[in-house]
Amino acid sequence: MTTQRPSSNPARRSEASRRAILTAAFELVGEVGYAKLSIEGIAARAGVGKQTIYRWWPSKGTVLLDAFLMLSGGQDGEAALPDTGDLEADLKTVLRATVAELNDPRYDEPMRALATEIAHDPELAAAYSERLDGPMRELKKERLRAAQRAGQLALDLDLDVAVEMVWGPLLNRWLQRGGPLTPGYADSVVETALNGLRPRG
Amino acid sequence: MTTQRPSSNPARRSEASRRAILTAAFELVGEVGYAKLSIEGIAARAGVGKQTIYRWWPSKGTVLLDAFLMLSGGQDGEAALPDTGDLEADLKTVLRATVAELNDPRYDEPMRALATEIAHDPELAAAYSERLDGPMRELKKERLRAAQRAGQLALDLDLDVAVEMVWGPLLNRWLQRGGPLTPGYADSVVETALNGLRPRG
Repeated sequence: MTTQRPSSNPARRSEASRRAILTAAFELVGEVGYAKLSIEGIAARAGVGKQTIYRWWPSKGTVLLDAFLMLSGGQDGEAALPDTGDLEADLKTVLRATVAELNDPRYDEPMRALATEIAHDPELAAAYSERLDGPMRELKKERLRAAQRAGQLALDLDLDVAVEMVWGPLLNRWLQRGGPLTPGYADSVVETALNGLRPRG
Repeated sequence: MTTQRPSSNPARRSEASRRAILTAAFELVGEVGYAKLSIEGIAARAGVGKQTIYRWWPSKGTVLLDAFLMLSGGQDGEAALPDTGDLEADLKTVLRATVAELNDPRYDEPMRALATEIAHDPELAAAYSERLDGPMRELKKERLRAAQRAGQLALDLDLDVAVEMVWGPLLNRWLQRGGPLTPGYADSVVETALNGLRPRG
């Protein structure tokens, strides 16, 4: 019977509901797919009324986006790409982790759902870009800038293009099921992006 | 009253129906989106009975795939990437054409529909890979092999990775709406893929 008791603290109760809703949305989309995901279903799984969800989110797409934000811990701004000084090794570490995540059945379907909704919904794409992809892209560019300062990358790179050169092939192969996603593929993408297709003299 | 009259020639009548169905599917998905595309709707637009469609195709996804095959002329095997001897210029030509196509409202929605269905449907993805993406990828690799023979590309490239290095970033940016698709972006992707991110001595 202290103020620590969750049910007596509206802010904490609210945060607990929010987490329950986002967890439910993430689990459900993995089980039933995006087409059959519904606000009613999320509410039932989370043990809240559906008005609670509608009060905070305009659509199931935005709920899913927030679920990813919660999982990625992307809102606290503390994440950063590894920097051991060896860019090639660091990028391989990151891309191998991405491969493992994309191959994890818990993540595969929810991430496909988000990616394909973004493809069809410009508003959700804008929210994704602003809140999840944009901050992630900034971390990637920050790592590339450090490599430029260390003389490991060309100084005249367009860093947005460079980011898509390293991460685009992986995401594209995954989403379009263009081939197996293996650690070896991740390594090969990193090496090919760094060295380029032309012979090096 | 000759054997040339369409209605008296079952094979020709059949081919005319097939083209009408594929054209209707392509137009309709652009107008109503994939979710609302139906076999009934395609049949009505094409002026055929829906049993005619079910006789030839198991699902709306496979109809759409055949519509793309018809449009790309991909079944006659005559297409090839340009080869002027200047790989960089040729790839820019090809990627600029892809940018123009992706920015064309007639193609944007049908291509998004196909891409996102592939993301969710492994069977359709396999058919796409075998019948459309596979042959296209072979043409791309053939052009890269010619460049290798001309000493313009490294001989130890993994050509599948090389293909995704050139085309993946463009497709990924388009599908995920990660930024504007411009001719300048196409050029930058080609230059960055060829030169790589590392400084060239």
